[in-house]
Amino acid sequence: MSTVFAKGFSTGSVHAGITALKDKKDLAIVVNNGPSDVAAGVFTSNRFAAAPVIVSKEIIADGKAKAVLINSGGANACTGEKGIEQSRICVKETAAALNLKEDEVLVASTGLIGELLPVEKMISGIKAAAADLSDSAEYGIASAKAIMTTDTKYKTVEIQADGYRVGGMVKGSGMIAPSLATMICVITTDADVTAEQAQKALKEAASVTFDRIDVDGCMSTNDTVLLLSSAASGVKPDFEDFKEKIKQACSSLSRQIIGDGEGATHDIKITVSDATSEEAALACARAVAASNLLKCAICGNDPNWGRVVSSLGTVPEETAPYDPLKVTVDINSVRVCDGGKPGLPRALVQMAQNREVQIDICLNTGGNCEATVWTDDLTLDYVHINADYES
Amino acid sequence: MSTVFAKGFSTGSVHAGITALKDKKDLAIVVNNGPSDVAAGVFTSNRFAAAPVIVSKEIIADGKAKAVLINSGGANACTGEKGIEQSRICVKETAAALNLKEDEVLVASTGLIGELLPVEKMISGIKAAAADLSDSAEYGIASAKAIMTTDTKYKTVEIQADGYRVGGMVKGSGMIAPSLATMICVITTDADVTAEQAQKALKEAASVTFDRIDVDGCMSTNDTVLLLSSAASGVKPDFEDFKEKIKQACSSLSRQIIGDGEGATHDIKITVSDATSEEAALACARAVAASNLLKCAICGNDPNWGRVVSSLGTVPEETAPYDPLKVTVDINSVRVCDGGKPGLPRALVQMAQNREVQIDICLNTGGNCEATVWTDDLTLDYVHINADYES
Repeated sequence: MSTVFAKGFSTGSVHAGITALKDKKDLAIVVNNGPSDVAAGVFTSNRFAAAPVIVSKEIIADGKAKAVLINSGGANACTGEKGIEQSRICVKETAAALNLKEDEVLVASTGLIGELLPVEKMISGIKAAAADLSDSAEYGIASAKAIMTTDTKYKTVEIQADGYRVGGMVKGSGMIAPSLATMICVITTDADVTAEQAQKALKEAASVTFDRIDVDGCMSTNDTVLLLSSAASGVKPDFEDFKEKIKQACSSLSRQIIGDGEGATHDIKITVSDATSEEAALACARAVAASNLLKCAICGNDPNWGRVVSSLGTVPEETAPYDPLKVTVDINSVRVCDGGKPGLPRALVQMAQNREVQIDICLNTGGNCEATVWTDDLTLDYVHINADYES
Repeated sequence: MSTVFAKGFSTGSVHAGITALKDKKDLAIVVNNGPSDVAAGVFTSNRFAAAPVIVSKEIIADGKAKAVLINSGGANACTGEKGIEQSRICVKETAAALNLKEDEVLVASTGLIGELLPVEKMISGIKAAAADLSDSAEYGIASAKAIMTTDTKYKTVEIQADGYRVGGMVKGSGMIAPSLATMICVITTDADVTAEQAQKALKEAASVTFDRIDVDGCMSTNDTVLLLSSAASGVKPDFEDFKEKIKQACSSLSRQIIGDGEGATHDIKITVSDATSEEAALACARAVAASNLLKCAICGNDPNWGRVVSSLGTVPEETAPYDPLKVTVDINSVRVCDGGKPGLPRALVQMAQNREVQIDICLNTGGNCEATVWTDDLTLDYVHINADYES
């Protein structure tokens, strides 16, 4: 279902020949048929933002867009003026193929950094995709597959709300850092919301979902999260409820990214509680999630809590006040570290059976703030995927 | 030669049975026979500092010490009051065996976090090591081997200065982050320096050597760098020259750690130049050195400069002002990225033949500051070592 679960959207996808992979679809278009054309976006904060990010930010500035063009097989990042020109050509060709204006089309690209796009192939692909649009479930799924790169599963979401719907798709598997970790995401809704509401809902949702997952600590140049509203349901939703639904959609999609992290065999949920502030809890959770040593230990099914606390100990006291001698660490509900020293035997922790591993760190500051960050284990396959690829 | 290259030092080492490895020596003592007993130290900033770190910091506070006890096979970190008590017992037993006072003995431990030491074995080992001390080269090397854990090579340094000597040993292979990345290091000199001089020289040297290497971004709870001066040469060195020699020693030892990084097949030297400040250059170099994706690419002998700039782009502008469109990246002297976009073909870069890879990033800000950080590639063996170990 994906992006076409909400009414008023159609999509199409083709193999344009951008990727070297034979027959893999690598180009998708999502069209908002209205009546509304509200659009919101959040983008990477990387200073080497890719050409499509630069171009899309300009176009979405007015809070409106009617279509999104996405390609895998090339990021069009660090490609200079020529890259910007290519993204503009893609916008222009998509607008022409869909009979839209050029300021109504957004673009997103994913793939290798530092290579220009094969523009002629892109143009042929755009025409073919635009000529075969549908709101059928299978087209939605085909588009979700077309935007995949190292992903092994397509990732979609469908949420039925009170009189309106939210759907979406995302791609992302590696180069996923906790600063809008997503690569490319398109969320659609048929709720009737204003551009301000859409932007606020999306930003808030991303800050507690895509901003709190971390596959490998590496920030992409192409991260793009878009929300398009068609208003086709005719329902003006309660804003709190709408925000909650957008958060649910982002939460589901970000959880799916972690579930498909490059080479991962374990999804690791790290919750830091009893902190003096949410920021403090988040800083601690992020420090632990970034530990290669911990991520290797989890890969080996070892509840090595020493690697949890040694990472926790790198967070400066001014960022997160806590007393190391009061910290407890539970791994899959077994208190392996109690008051900064050994607790129950590590052998009691069951890890090999399940993909999900839960690490609960209680700072015992007397504060009641908490935060959760998700990450993956670091495996031989992660290294394989990122060392032995074709470049 | 190691710690006994400088006059006035002797050392001894034994297999005390602390490690599970049969026959591997796991306990070493370094003794300063004077006439001076000047000592300086820098320690981990980890908030979960290990018991031996806590105890040694107290003892070295007066700038004096006559011996150091080091064990591998157990870090005595996150072991609470009981761990502190164990480190104090080790100090006491070493002092008794060497006929020293308890405030003259330092301790350092390395190994698994969260386990107490086998104290009875430690005591037997201390007695045996103290009963068989020598200033011979082979004893120096044996001690350097005794402190190894996942290290595959022992690491020592010998510097002949003008009338005096500097020697030393270090262990470190994993859990090496750019914040006093060393695990355990003992440097000795027979120069006649004051405690203030020793501390200043050591601190300055560590800040540009051990603080600028990064195997895996993980900070240890046990990092300890000690400098002992016997003054046995009778030479009061020129202080600038002395600082330079201590820096050379630390530089050699930190380079050896990188050369023996867990599972590493490439040593990566990252230099950022033309920055507005040394801090800016350092922040950029550290961000690039921390990239798992880049480290995997280097493992696969791919000069993937996209992974260099995408990491560079995560450094906030207020930390390091630069224009992405002016940045150049040279890998092994081939300008693969020129002005933020593709430069020469990646195929021109030769990487497979040599262990060392040089990445030169020029920010072209008009500033003339630079900084260098060393790291290792991320390999299948790193994951093997840190996932499939015995715990």
